Amino acid sequence: MADEASFQFLHNEVIQYIYKSADSGDTEHGGDISTLENMGCRVGQGLVERLTKDTARFKDELDIMKFVCKDFWTCVFKKQIDNLRTNHQGIYVLQDNKFRLLSQLSAGKQYLEHAPKYLAFSCGLVRGALSNLGVKSIVTAEVSVMPACKTHITPLSSNQRQDTFYSFQYLS
Amino acid sequence: MADEASFQFLHNEVIQYIYKSADSGDTEHGGDISTLENMGCRVGQGLVERLTKDTARFKDELDIMKFVCKDFWTCVFKKQIDNLRTNHQGIYVLQDNKFRLLSQLSAGKQYLEHAPKYLAFSCGLVRGALSNLGVKSIVTAEVSVMPACKTHITPLSSNQRQDTFYSFQYLS
Repeated sequence: MADEASFQFLHNEVIQYIYKSADSGDTEHGGDISTLENMGCRVGQGLVERLTKDTARFKDELDIMKFVCKDFWTCVFKKQIDNLRTNHQGIYVLQDNKFRLLSQLSAGKQYLEHAPKYLAFSCGLVRGALSNLGVKSIVTAEVSVMPACKTHITPLSSNQRQDTFYSFQYLS
Repeated sequence: MADEASFQFLHNEVIQYIYKSADSGDTEHGGDISTLENMGCRVGQGLVERLTKDTARFKDELDIMKFVCKDFWTCVFKKQIDNLRTNHQGIYVLQDNKFRLLSQLSAGKQYLEHAPKYLAFSCGLVRGALSNLGVKSIVTAEVSVMPACKTHITPLSSNQRQDTFYSFQYLS
């Protein structure tokens, strides 16, 4: 219980510090979500390097996603993702019904407006992990009722970009 | 191995962020050791509240120090303090022969000048934990060869202050 708390408390302190910098008008470094997201990205990159040190090569993108849902999520948040879905057009949705970084906030919809700053770090975390596994992607998060959280992953694979290109060609 | 790494990586990011703020001339929020130390203090306060939820009341100050060396240190750094010493005049020295927050730096004396910023957080951590256990104290750290670290704790107990007062009286 308390074992994983040091990470969580430190994460809260970081949010407070960054938003305090923003309030004091330090626009260059503080305040925006992207600072937190970039921090998360670098932490994700480092973590995934350690985690995959002795694992076999991944078969495909879905295999990588399963690794993120199980091993990676357990390493950081001490539980697995509860549900992984894909629309088979390249978008993945990871659902965590009790997301640890939101578990200290009051459950329900009351503090929903504060959710984004508690999700930015974890979005970056996933983006960084995936990028070091060769999957460049856009990662966003969505909360409708705390502490459940959905993470959307849209990989920017070369295939997909080609698809988009072709469909544009068809349109013209 | 990788399980505890998320805390460590986040800690490194925080140091980088705070020192980048300092370099850009944001003197109000960034840069000095005390920012990191204060962060550590609040994290320590939070952690010790969780950790002591179900423990019995401590007998005395030494009992509290033993708790910090064993349970508290293990919770954050995944190992116990290697050696606890006291001069029986109220000063405690906690020696960790392989301090986790220094373990990513090159061992030896080469990067000794960078040690202070990697120690500030843990000093605050101990100060915060002790203050919530009723021991107000001054906490400093000392490194002579990485990754070994000595943490010095000087409690500001009322008795001691009285002692100092009396000894001053004797002197005059």
